[in-house]
Amino acid sequence: MRNVRILIAYDGSKFFGWQRQDGFLSVQEALEEALLSLLGTAPIVRGSGRTDTGVHALGQVAHFHVETRLEDDRLRHALNAHLVDGIVVRRLETCRDDFHAQYDAVSKRYAYVVWTERFRSPFLGAHAHSVPDPLDLPSMRQAARELVGEHDFSAFASAGSPRKSPVRHLRRLRIGGNHRRFAMIFEANGFLYNMARALAGTLLEVGRGKLTPSRVREVLLSRDRRLAGPTAPAEGLYLVSVRYPERCFPGRDRGPRGVPGIYSY
Amino acid sequence: MRNVRILIAYDGSKFFGWQRQDGFLSVQEALEEALLSLLGTAPIVRGSGRTDTGVHALGQVAHFHVETRLEDDRLRHALNAHLVDGIVVRRLETCRDDFHAQYDAVSKRYAYVVWTERFRSPFLGAHAHSVPDPLDLPSMRQAARELVGEHDFSAFASAGSPRKSPVRHLRRLRIGGNHRRFAMIFEANGFLYNMARALAGTLLEVGRGKLTPSRVREVLLSRDRRLAGPTAPAEGLYLVSVRYPERCFPGRDRGPRGVPGIYSY
Repeated sequence: MRNVRILIAYDGSKFFGWQRQDGFLSVQEALEEALLSLLGTAPIVRGSGRTDTGVHALGQVAHFHVETRLEDDRLRHALNAHLVDGIVVRRLETCRDDFHAQYDAVSKRYAYVVWTERFRSPFLGAHAHSVPDPLDLPSMRQAARELVGEHDFSAFASAGSPRKSPVRHLRRLRIGGNHRRFAMIFEANGFLYNMARALAGTLLEVGRGKLTPSRVREVLLSRDRRLAGPTAPAEGLYLVSVRYPERCFPGRDRGPRGVPGIYSY
Repeated sequence: MRNVRILIAYDGSKFFGWQRQDGFLSVQEALEEALLSLLGTAPIVRGSGRTDTGVHALGQVAHFHVETRLEDDRLRHALNAHLVDGIVVRRLETCRDDFHAQYDAVSKRYAYVVWTERFRSPFLGAHAHSVPDPLDLPSMRQAARELVGEHDFSAFASAGSPRKSPVRHLRRLRIGGNHRRFAMIFEANGFLYNMARALAGTLLEVGRGKLTPSRVREVLLSRDRRLAGPTAPAEGLYLVSVRYPERCFPGRDRGPRGVPGIYSY
C-alpha cells in the first residue's frame, strides 16, 4: 500500500463542507468517489482539517492509502478526470508511510477576501464577501496588530467543537490589497472552530467604525465570544496552505490561480 | 412616457442570450420581467445589439419607455431588487425621447479573455477561455496589426445574419496582459455575426503557431471564412462598452468590477 498525499483546490460553494454526510456531497466524498470509480476501491481520504460549507480551499492537503501501479503524475491526471466540477488535484506525491495530513500539520494559512462594491458583481458568485461601502483599512491593520501572538482565543471561537486548550499562536495577521479589494491573511499553528471567520468579522466591524483597535484588545482579553464581532460569511474564506515539518510538493506549481482579490498573496 | 437608458452587466452563462425566446430565460426577458413586477407594465427593452448565449457584458446599453414617478436613482435600485441573479443595472438615466440603444451606437468594444492553466481553476467558471499551454503573444500582437483598419471582414463572419455590407472599421485590436492571463480588446464601428469570436479564434491559432501573422493578412483578403481559425468559445467574450454621439452616464461609476483577467483594461 502506498501512502499518497495531495494538494487540492475547491470551490466551497459547490460542496457541503469537507466531511462526509449522508445525502449531501462533501469534498471528502467527492475525492473518495473519484478514487472508487478509478481504482475499484475507496480508501478513506483524510484532510488536514475540516472546512465548513461555503469555505474554499486553494491548498488543502489530504492523504490516503492505495494499491495501484499508476505512477504519481498519471494517478493525478486520472483522478482529475474522475472528479466532479469544482475541485481539482493540483499536486500529488507518494510520501512516507506515516505521514498524516491532520496530525503532522505545523501551521495553516487562511485568507478572508473582501470586495467593496455598490452593486454586487454578477461575476463574483460566492467567491468573496461583498460589502457596499469602503472600510477603514488603517484602523483594521492597527487592530490586527493587537491580535498577533500567543493568546487564549476563546473570544473568537464558536461553541461546538471542544478543544483541550483555547490557546493558539497567531503568527501573522496581514491585510493586503486596497480599499476596493483586499484580503486578511491569518497564519497560526491552529485555529479554533470558526476562529478565522470570527476574527474577520471583528476586523470588519473595526473597518466600519463600530469597534476601535484598542477595544479589540479588550475583547481578546475578555475571552467572551459575545463581545467580538459576528462570524463573517463563509464565502469570503479560503484555506490557502498547510505547512508540515518536511517540504511537500517541491517544484513549480502550475495549478489553478486567480481567486478574486488574492492574486498577489 | 420617459425614455430611460441603462448600463448593465451580466453573466452570460446564466442566460440564453440577449433576445427573448420561449422557454429559455434571456437577458431581455429578465429585464422586462423585472419591470413588469415593479411597474405592472412590461415595456419592450431594446439593447445595443444581441449577445449570444454564454457571452458576458460589462457595459451593455439598453433603453425602454416607462411611465413612473420614481426618480432615476430609485428606479435603478428598485429594478436591481427585482432582477434575477447574474444581471445588474450599473447606471440608469432618463434620456432624450429619440435615443435608441441600437441605432445610435457609434462603436463597440469587446474583450476576449484567456487564461493559461494546466488544470482549470475550480473558481473560473464560465468566465474566461482556458488554454493549457502558453501562447506566443508577440506573434499574436503582430497578427493583430494586420487586422486593424477598414476591411471587408467576410473571412471572420459566420453565416446566418445577412448584412448590407461586410465592411467594418476595426479601430483598435490590442492584446493586454501577460502569458498567463490576457485579453484581446476589439474596438469597431460594428461587428459582423460572430466576428469578435472568429478574430479571437484566429489569433489563438497564431498563438499556438498554427498560423503566421502574414498568413492572417492573406486570410483577411481572401474573404473566405473557411481559411480563418475556429470561432472561439463564448465564455471568453465580454461586451465591454458601447459608444454614442453624446456622453452617457457621466460621473463616477461604482458598478461591478473584477472580471477575471481584465481588471486593468
